[in-house]
Amino acid sequence: MTDHIPIEDALFESLLTKETFQGYEDPEKFKQYIPKIEQYKKALEDGILEEYKVDFPKPIEELVDEQLDAVEYLYKHKLLTPEEFEITDSTATEIVKNIGDGKWTAVQVFKAFAHRGTIAHQFTNCAHQLFVDEGLKHAQKLDEYQKKNGKLIGPLHGVPISLKEQSGYKGKITHAGYVGLIDNIAPKHSVTTQILSDLGAVFYIRTTQPQTLMHLCSGNNFSEKTKCPFNIALSSGGSSSGEGAVVSFGGSAIGIGSDIGGSVRSPAAFSGCHGLRPTTRRLSTLGGVSSGAGQESVPSVFGPLARSIGDIEHMMKVTINEGHPWDYDNWSLYMPWREVSKPVAKDLTIAVIRDNGLVRPSPPIRRGVDTVVKKLKEAGVNIIEFNPPNIELAIKTAVQLFASDGNEKQRELLAKSGEPLQMLTKWGLNYGEEVNYTIQDHRKLNATRDALRNEYNDYMVQNKVDFILSPAYNNVAPRPTEAYNWSYTTLFNLLDLPTLAFQTGLKQDPEVDVWTEEDMRYEYRSKIEELENMNYNPEKFKHAPIALQLSGRRYRDEEVVAAGKLIVDDILKVNLFH
Amino acid sequence: MTDHIPIEDALFESLLTKETFQGYEDPEKFKQYIPKIEQYKKALEDGILEEYKVDFPKPIEELVDEQLDAVEYLYKHKLLTPEEFEITDSTATEIVKNIGDGKWTAVQVFKAFAHRGTIAHQFTNCAHQLFVDEGLKHAQKLDEYQKKNGKLIGPLHGVPISLKEQSGYKGKITHAGYVGLIDNIAPKHSVTTQILSDLGAVFYIRTTQPQTLMHLCSGNNFSEKTKCPFNIALSSGGSSSGEGAVVSFGGSAIGIGSDIGGSVRSPAAFSGCHGLRPTTRRLSTLGGVSSGAGQESVPSVFGPLARSIGDIEHMMKVTINEGHPWDYDNWSLYMPWREVSKPVAKDLTIAVIRDNGLVRPSPPIRRGVDTVVKKLKEAGVNIIEFNPPNIELAIKTAVQLFASDGNEKQRELLAKSGEPLQMLTKWGLNYGEEVNYTIQDHRKLNATRDALRNEYNDYMVQNKVDFILSPAYNNVAPRPTEAYNWSYTTLFNLLDLPTLAFQTGLKQDPEVDVWTEEDMRYEYRSKIEELENMNYNPEKFKHAPIALQLSGRRYRDEEVVAAGKLIVDDILKVNLFH
Repeated sequence: MTDHIPIEDALFESLLTKETFQGYEDPEKFKQYIPKIEQYKKALEDGILEEYKVDFPKPIEELVDEQLDAVEYLYKHKLLTPEEFEITDSTATEIVKNIGDGKWTAVQVFKAFAHRGTIAHQFTNCAHQLFVDEGLKHAQKLDEYQKKNGKLIGPLHGVPISLKEQSGYKGKITHAGYVGLIDNIAPKHSVTTQILSDLGAVFYIRTTQPQTLMHLCSGNNFSEKTKCPFNIALSSGGSSSGEGAVVSFGGSAIGIGSDIGGSVRSPAAFSGCHGLRPTTRRLSTLGGVSSGAGQESVPSVFGPLARSIGDIEHMMKVTINEGHPWDYDNWSLYMPWREVSKPVAKDLTIAVIRDNGLVRPSPPIRRGVDTVVKKLKEAGVNIIEFNPPNIELAIKTAVQLFASDGNEKQRELLAKSGEPLQMLTKWGLNYGEEVNYTIQDHRKLNATRDALRNEYNDYMVQNKVDFILSPAYNNVAPRPTEAYNWSYTTLFNLLDLPTLAFQTGLKQDPEVDVWTEEDMRYEYRSKIEELENMNYNPEKFKHAPIALQLSGRRYRDEEVVAAGKLIVDDILKVNLFH
Repeated sequence: MTDHIPIEDALFESLLTKETFQGYEDPEKFKQYIPKIEQYKKALEDGILEEYKVDFPKPIEELVDEQLDAVEYLYKHKLLTPEEFEITDSTATEIVKNIGDGKWTAVQVFKAFAHRGTIAHQFTNCAHQLFVDEGLKHAQKLDEYQKKNGKLIGPLHGVPISLKEQSGYKGKITHAGYVGLIDNIAPKHSVTTQILSDLGAVFYIRTTQPQTLMHLCSGNNFSEKTKCPFNIALSSGGSSSGEGAVVSFGGSAIGIGSDIGGSVRSPAAFSGCHGLRPTTRRLSTLGGVSSGAGQESVPSVFGPLARSIGDIEHMMKVTINEGHPWDYDNWSLYMPWREVSKPVAKDLTIAVIRDNGLVRPSPPIRRGVDTVVKKLKEAGVNIIEFNPPNIELAIKTAVQLFASDGNEKQRELLAKSGEPLQMLTKWGLNYGEEVNYTIQDHRKLNATRDALRNEYNDYMVQNKVDFILSPAYNNVAPRPTEAYNWSYTTLFNLLDLPTLAFQTGLKQDPEVDVWTEEDMRYEYRSKIEELENMNYNPEKFKHAPIALQLSGRRYRDEEVVAAGKLIVDDILKVNLFH
């Protein structure tokens, strides 16, 4: 049971080696791209300032074998100055306040985060691009602005924000995980990036993501895989892989990821921070690069990752209410961020999903749910057990809608360079390879999706359920490439419910989080469940953060975040700062 | 120039008789449906109460030839009692107030409207179903409720509202213009109908619509065509054909239509009332029947028609803020109706489209635009001339998205009964017959649509344009079946801008609204323009209402309606009540 079965063999062999992946890889063509990739990698290496370089005690491979907790190491070995620690262990709102009060300059703040973020990269491989010099110049300009005008430029003045690479960045390569796009220079910032910049944010890092953006991991042909900061033998999640790692490590105050099937929540949950997948169209995605242009049945959204729920709220509020995305992107809803006060626990009804019926959660996740439910009940929350209906249909419908074009766009982007396919790319492509949908099929899929959305909406309305609590994945952070099951996160993309992945404050404990005798007698409901469960070996997941997710009704992102503050800050008393 | 060229010949012959309309008509199969149609028609005849029957002075065909103004006739021949006139010439808000104050009962109000609406039907053929007895019982219950509880049941207590037939009505046939659906009994009200009912509205009439719902006219195999009340030789527009006629005639206080390409605005404009096409997803369309399920690129919306802009506002506000459509239909936006005050004329910038570049407006429409622009300028409004960019691409994209399934769903619904195809059905089917789009093509169409939306949004933001004023069609109400050009209305469906069709208070005048010498030298830009212009012969359009439309930014329905009150009520001083 606890033996690890390598993913390459047994169950998925036939699937992953099948003959259908034709028209993608082309080693000859790819050769032409290798020098460009080398150049790109070198630019990243060169972006690591000499003074920020970490003196590793032993080769990183050995640290991986030891399941190093890089955050623990950061503090134990005092890799930052006390002032740098103080700054980088502050929330974004504290940072803005302290700059406004003259306690810190934007340059001081920037240097502290750039230092910590560059260390994060050396441990976790979270960056695709580092441009500390540019960020420093911007921070200097902010200080000059403040000096000259006697006020801050905006509500994010001097806040270092990390950006997922796929979000177009003016003048920089924007490849979205496709080698074939290595020559694509974004003509301007994405709308969200521009808004953040206008509000005073400072950028210095663009972060890793997997090939195609459709993995819950980070495999791509530009860099090595990204690691969970609390156990560098594990995955940081995906597809906002680098965001999860850099934010959890404290290398940026806020990170911007994107989520079509779990890509903000998986990295937040696996890496050790919080992350919000907002309802669609609340934040602009215009200027982001992906294979999904025009796929609007289950669209991708941008969303923030942070170590504080308050910072997630601040980012959403100012980006929407002061940034006015609808002035630059007509796709954005004209829906201001509402002021919603923190709810009272005894007024809340929360439906809890313990097992979604597809893949049984591993012991640490079950402990996470049990602990949180117990504390919620103690606080007076009304808890209802909830078995999500039609879950197989829901996930199937989501995947069919993602891949409805028969992978045509992904194939075009992959074939451009002929780059080798990552294993999880093949996994994702499987859903689309034999698809030959007509438009009418597609309309029926939309109608099925709407019926499912109404089924869940009716459940919440009729039972007066305020929120749904569920695992964000069936496991804590898996080992790299071992994340197959999207169902816990993707359900809420299909339903388009705002969902906050949050840390419970618990970490995996190999002594406690073991399979029980009863578990050993369990009969698997599917091969994917068997694979996912077999991948959990308690010894290999030391210190992995235990996270859950909280979903609210559609467009009630405000209520989800407000409840997140109650649950995370007040009830669970989680503090991700040192 | 002024000679009428019958639509059957010349320009469109090849198009309309082409071989591609295969798999639709089946005379043998249709024969089985004829008795059912007869029964349906008889039920309608039986629904005309004896005491509401009009004693026509001569056969209706002769009145048509005389271009009878049925509204004028109604008053001249005093077809209602003074009290009935007083009631039916009140706004919905006045009605609710007077019932609340005890001046009128719900039964009194109901009877007056049912009488006027039944007369409307006899002149204009606006009804598919009449059920006065049922409405009367409901009105009685409302009076009992008021008596027992000392208050009204809701903000629409006792307001007679007419409903387009396609909107599902519990226990009644809901065919959406397809004979094949004549056995389809709706299991429940559509969400919007249920909300209106819960708020106190009373129903007694379900109104006409064309086969397929995709005409700007009313041709179907259940009934004769619906007529403009102000000139019964003309079309009432479509596809909310009966709504235009019954509301304009005063047979209901508010009407509910639907609009995917102009279907609220065309009947409002042609028939003589106002009509709002809201932004998508502000009102629920769940429970409506059409061929468009799952087509969400340019979706249909429900919207109100009324003789008062204030009533349009009242309907939108209470349906959204008190009806909470998002509790019953997850597709509805959680976007409360905002309180927006009437703007100040001199603060406004309005861009005016005089000619959209595809079809030149006829003389009465040009007079309408000139008059309104002049009055707006006098009131202090800043007017900018606006040539809409990429108009051909916009209309082509909309039509491609409507018909993207290659008419598969329409074909299924039409072929079910093998019913004869109406000429404008063929016209609409033309766009889809040879379509063979892939999903990727469809995604590209969505991307094109979004680029167009942003082009127009950028124009409005960068030029600080509050609203766009334009003709609602290139002509006043055309003769039946002579409406081919959707481009004036459909542009705003593609852009998803809230758009109010409003009466200018002007009527066509055969002496004034003539083609000029210069017009005669005009070189047509297309065959559709030639046809549309040739269809305008001044002698044939006596008293046709002259209407325009006002579009605002996406989701700013509130601002459009508020500006509508300023323009229609204060500046143009239009009063559609007697």
